[in-house]
Amino acid sequence: MGLRYCVLGTGALGGFYGGLMAKKGLDIHFLLHSDYEHVVKHGLRVDSKLGDFHLPKINAYAKPHDMPKCDVAIIGLKSTQNHLLEDLLKPILHEDSIVLVLQNGLNVEQTARGIVGPNRVAGGCCFLCSNKVDPGHIRHLDYGRIVFGAYRGIEGSDPGPSTPMLQEVLQDMVASGIEAYLTEDLPTTKWKKLMWNIPFNGLSVLLNASTDAIMNDPDSRLLARRISEEVRQIALAAGSPIEPSYVDWVIDHTDDMVPYDSSMRLDYLSGRAIEVEAIYGNALQEAQRCGFAAPIVMTMYQQLKFMAGHRTSGNT
Amino acid sequence: MGLRYCVLGTGALGGFYGGLMAKKGLDIHFLLHSDYEHVVKHGLRVDSKLGDFHLPKINAYAKPHDMPKCDVAIIGLKSTQNHLLEDLLKPILHEDSIVLVLQNGLNVEQTARGIVGPNRVAGGCCFLCSNKVDPGHIRHLDYGRIVFGAYRGIEGSDPGPSTPMLQEVLQDMVASGIEAYLTEDLPTTKWKKLMWNIPFNGLSVLLNASTDAIMNDPDSRLLARRISEEVRQIALAAGSPIEPSYVDWVIDHTDDMVPYDSSMRLDYLSGRAIEVEAIYGNALQEAQRCGFAAPIVMTMYQQLKFMAGHRTSGNT
Repeated sequence: MGLRYCVLGTGALGGFYGGLMAKKGLDIHFLLHSDYEHVVKHGLRVDSKLGDFHLPKINAYAKPHDMPKCDVAIIGLKSTQNHLLEDLLKPILHEDSIVLVLQNGLNVEQTARGIVGPNRVAGGCCFLCSNKVDPGHIRHLDYGRIVFGAYRGIEGSDPGPSTPMLQEVLQDMVASGIEAYLTEDLPTTKWKKLMWNIPFNGLSVLLNASTDAIMNDPDSRLLARRISEEVRQIALAAGSPIEPSYVDWVIDHTDDMVPYDSSMRLDYLSGRAIEVEAIYGNALQEAQRCGFAAPIVMTMYQQLKFMAGHRTSGNT
Repeated sequence: MGLRYCVLGTGALGGFYGGLMAKKGLDIHFLLHSDYEHVVKHGLRVDSKLGDFHLPKINAYAKPHDMPKCDVAIIGLKSTQNHLLEDLLKPILHEDSIVLVLQNGLNVEQTARGIVGPNRVAGGCCFLCSNKVDPGHIRHLDYGRIVFGAYRGIEGSDPGPSTPMLQEVLQDMVASGIEAYLTEDLPTTKWKKLMWNIPFNGLSVLLNASTDAIMNDPDSRLLARRISEEVRQIALAAGSPIEPSYVDWVIDHTDDMVPYDSSMRLDYLSGRAIEVEAIYGNALQEAQRCGFAAPIVMTMYQQLKFMAGHRTSGNT
């Protein structure tokens, strides 16, 4: 018998990956909030580079208490909603369930770890460009890779979920057409993603600019590179050595990207909370833990905190 | 016989100080640009905390060629207009004239020094809150102190103008009711001013915020302090030791300020050029000359360069 999945947060991310897994016929259940009525009536629609599809009926729920217990809870919510996680998770977990946290930022798995304990949490990075364009309607624009692995805690000493369990999740994803990989070294995967997120998410909000505007200006381009390098230095101090040339890769890769807005800029412009703590605050905590000064990342953190607190009078 | 003064740039600064000197009856001549016709007809009006006054007739000129040769040329233009300086200065200088550059930023005297040579340039810091509110109409809101002294070049080895000459200028200013001081150490005076200008000018543009908004937010307040401290460190490396407690003074002093906008923010919001090179670029050149890394100031410089280059699509 296969694994049973629950998806908490059926938006751009949960709706896309979960939708592919439902299309494959896996045992998967979706928690919805504002889109519940619509999805019950009209199903879930995904427009994707991988092929458009429509699922007229999915297992949709408005409350976690109505959902079945699952083996794997996939967290598709933003980290800014992690204060909701305990109430959402408790009703759907049995004693061996694991939680797969697919959120930007470092140690965002700590909330789930506090709820289920040290050996039942995995984390992952999604390299995905996807938006929810309408209720129950996801538009997948580009990319789609997931790299996930055991979350071993801030100190790196937790056992985390068993490898066979994670491999079964991997197989289900791959069978569903998802480009998924398992990593033994989640922190390094996270830091590599942060080498992009920290420069480009923050600058896109602070400079009110799209990714290509940042890349096409010589000063902001150089700044993005300096930021990415500082993140690499924090990672090194934190025990995740990443080759210096990865900074070049980040910059070159961004040149090749379709010009689209970072998730943080979209959140900011829409008046939603921005993931300053998950992406910046937690990276700075790691830097501090290792005694590493991160002056540029600290500067961005303080600027973004100001921006997040002054939206109405600020430059929205 | 007293000194003859020419004021280049009769705006918030040149109009205020020059106006006080004209009111005193000194031999002073004003170059005007857009306000010329208005001032010829209606004179110069200054509303000031020191007492409002109106000068129905001042020595006003539209072109430097019409002006008499002067002993002291007071530069009231912004440093962003220094490319005009050669054409403006040459007609009004005799071989012993000195140039008093009253501009924000470091080594902004270099342009004048390139025109008149190493022993004829003085620089000064104005602690002044003043705006031009209408043609020929200055509103002085607060402060007014000038601290000026010989400009000794980037290496600090120029002789600069003679002390008796500078003392005569000082006496003329003081006699006119200006709170003026002569300094033997212009660089330290400049760095102290930069410990305010670098945090607050830049943040007010980058965060689209007034000074009091920056002070009232815990993150931006801390950031302003970190920036001011980094400027102090550059100054130290550049040979201008300033006591650490001056950072506290800068912050406390800003708390006490009437909430008003920084000159850079006013310039930015009005679509005028902002003094990024004078304030940030030149400070970074000093840092580089001394082998001192200034990561936060460099970050602000690159952000401000982007903002200055992307006004129309940016957050104006």
